[in-house]
Amino acid sequence: MFTSRPVGFVSSPYKGASEVPKGLGAKHEADGVLRILPEFEVGLTDIEGFSHLVVLWEFDRSQGFELLGTPPSDDRAHGVFATRSPRRPNPIALTIVELLRREGGELHVRGIDMLDGTPILDIKPLLSSIAPEKLRRGWLAEAEVRRG
Amino acid sequence: MFTSRPVGFVSSPYKGASEVPKGLGAKHEADGVLRILPEFEVGLTDIEGFSHLVVLWEFDRSQGFELLGTPPSDDRAHGVFATRSPRRPNPIALTIVELLRREGGELHVRGIDMLDGTPILDIKPLLSSIAPEKLRRGWLAEAEVRRG
Repeated sequence: MFTSRPVGFVSSPYKGASEVPKGLGAKHEADGVLRILPEFEVGLTDIEGFSHLVVLWEFDRSQGFELLGTPPSDDRAHGVFATRSPRRPNPIALTIVELLRREGGELHVRGIDMLDGTPILDIKPLLSSIAPEKLRRGWLAEAEVRRG
Repeated sequence: MFTSRPVGFVSSPYKGASEVPKGLGAKHEADGVLRILPEFEVGLTDIEGFSHLVVLWEFDRSQGFELLGTPPSDDRAHGVFATRSPRRPNPIALTIVELLRREGGELHVRGIDMLDGTPILDIKPLLSSIAPEKLRRGWLAEAEVRRG
């Protein structure tokens, strides 16, 4: 087991949970910035080549967990592992964002649903699961071409 | 910040890291079981309706982190946030699996790349990013139909 540590923080237009679009058909098209702490900035090397990123972050304004709960998108209760509820045994959230551009330790992205100041735990490149014509895979695609 | 806790453990055919397929074109088609601890089993309610799950798990056999490293799929170094390296500031891994069936607290899945005994941190339904004809969305799709 481990204790989480922030590698950066989100700058978001959403200041409170009620402002984040939720429920059926909610679209997350807000632009924001993932501000990576200076000591982790080297870890962003070559991230520019990817079109989409998986952002893992902490539900830091949620307390405790609830195994069965009713989400905004339904009027029936479902298990926490079948929903995106913030009240989870490990308060880890996942958002897929589009990377617009990088400026040093700042990643300008589209599609955020985090609150302003949210701690970022991890960033991973999205390697599949996006329509191929919309996906770029940066250095990995280049490495594939080099290796034929 | 929080301290991670396992909600279950993976039963996998892979007993050592060298057995897990890695690198370019590596396919993860192994079947395995996500064994959820009895105290969290209620959290699985309605998970059967989803075809694919996002599994967050811990790189429990990895030590420390490396901001720049050379992955098996390339001969050049890249930033940790542009790779799937296990040596991350927060040792959280992500795998998308296909749910074959549920038996109580056991989820039989396809597509695992974890080692046997790996601690599971979280499970979330995959709601998009899979070709629509292959994706089922369980209670959410039903709720959408009910609401018209």
